[in-house]
Amino acid sequence: MKNQKSDFNREAETNFTIEGRNPVLEAFRAGKTIDKLYILDGCQDGPIASIRREAKKSDTIVRYVTKERLDQLSETGKHQGVIANAAAYHYAEITDILAMAAKKGEPPFVIILDNIEDPHNLGAIIRTANLVGAHGVIVPKNRAALLNATVARTSAGAINYTPVAKVTNLTQTIADLKKQGLWFVCADMEGTAMYELDLTGPVGLVIGSEGSGISRLVKENCDYAAKIPMRGDIDSLNASVATGVLAYEILRQRISI
Amino acid sequence: MKNQKSDFNREAETNFTIEGRNPVLEAFRAGKTIDKLYILDGCQDGPIASIRREAKKSDTIVRYVTKERLDQLSETGKHQGVIANAAAYHYAEITDILAMAAKKGEPPFVIILDNIEDPHNLGAIIRTANLVGAHGVIVPKNRAALLNATVARTSAGAINYTPVAKVTNLTQTIADLKKQGLWFVCADMEGTAMYELDLTGPVGLVIGSEGSGISRLVKENCDYAAKIPMRGDIDSLNASVATGVLAYEILRQRISI
Repeated sequence: MKNQKSDFNREAETNFTIEGRNPVLEAFRAGKTIDKLYILDGCQDGPIASIRREAKKSDTIVRYVTKERLDQLSETGKHQGVIANAAAYHYAEITDILAMAAKKGEPPFVIILDNIEDPHNLGAIIRTANLVGAHGVIVPKNRAALLNATVARTSAGAINYTPVAKVTNLTQTIADLKKQGLWFVCADMEGTAMYELDLTGPVGLVIGSEGSGISRLVKENCDYAAKIPMRGDIDSLNASVATGVLAYEILRQRISI
Repeated sequence: MKNQKSDFNREAETNFTIEGRNPVLEAFRAGKTIDKLYILDGCQDGPIASIRREAKKSDTIVRYVTKERLDQLSETGKHQGVIANAAAYHYAEITDILAMAAKKGEPPFVIILDNIEDPHNLGAIIRTANLVGAHGVIVPKNRAALLNATVARTSAGAINYTPVAKVTNLTQTIADLKKQGLWFVCADMEGTAMYELDLTGPVGLVIGSEGSGISRLVKENCDYAAKIPMRGDIDSLNASVATGVLAYEILRQRISI
């Protein structure tokens, strides 16, 4: 994948904030570098005590501040009394994702998001990717939601563990990964019922946006189209729910081999 | 279920707004009473034209207004050029849910939410309930998110089709529904792997809140606890994703009988 290199973009955003008790605790536990920690003055409960212990262990600077100051610092409006100022989230390389699969001795399982712009959906999908045992998430460079505080928060800390790679050209990335032995299945209402497809082996699951679905070119490059059965009156599931349902069907088939 | 009657609460909220193209179109198509329709002046594209046709069919009053006026009327901030003023969403009765199952000739399948407060999650779950073929959603009266514009929008119109009942006492409702032949499975990380449970037949799926899970009393009244396999580093899935994964496992087992 030598000539693919320039496709990947290592990007740093400085002064990144992580907000809320679980996300901050998860960030410490994942070994993330926290530059500074803001805690609501007088806040003494269990989770805050755990966070303070972690901060002490890693010699993080702690500032006790007023609620007004926290509200001012908060990007999400949901800081729960604690905000961490962290080193930036880095986008990973595709090679990092494949290396993680190799390290675990598992066939690669990647989730590719064609056009998911909503940071809540991106966060929930990274969270699902982590728990379903996927080795990474790939997003297109142009239309990707940034890995910001909202994504970090809705990922419930998964952003610290699951690599997210950003690529210029999804079609090219799919072609390159096919050479590495992966095959690709996209979510598509006109596809084959997901239970009838063999979803085992090295696989890329491609999810389109809620509004416009998967772009034609990307769809044409997928090996299979998988349909989630729909028994209702409306059109489609929420993108992060659809990703969860399909990804767990892949895990079910992997487990039951 | 005679003595259960007083548990249910028919509630009306007047001047309810529905925002965005798909939700408004779905509301018309589902036969909802729209009192008044606000459209961005000069907006002429396909979806807006469809909405205007539906409005004409049902003699709805249409007002063409400025973007500023729409922004002012909007509760969600995402009106996409159209806001409908609708008759209130009514909570259904449990009997409505059972009647829907009977009408379809299917064993009842209900989703019970113990403590889901986030309107985005509630909306996404109603959407999933509709598509997975569940006959209704039950929420507790005290802690339920209201059926407001955000719920309606994130449900993508499913709120017009899938009945949502609000009850005073979840434990009592579970006991009553058990007498009707339903059995109950709750989502629980210490439960049995969901693939190993027989999830067919008349079933109630119980989902707890993200923060505190299912309350002890409700959990004790469930027949089984189902675990979603977790292969990752963090604790739990987003509540609406977890509901989707479990609900689709129920559908998979129903289909493959």
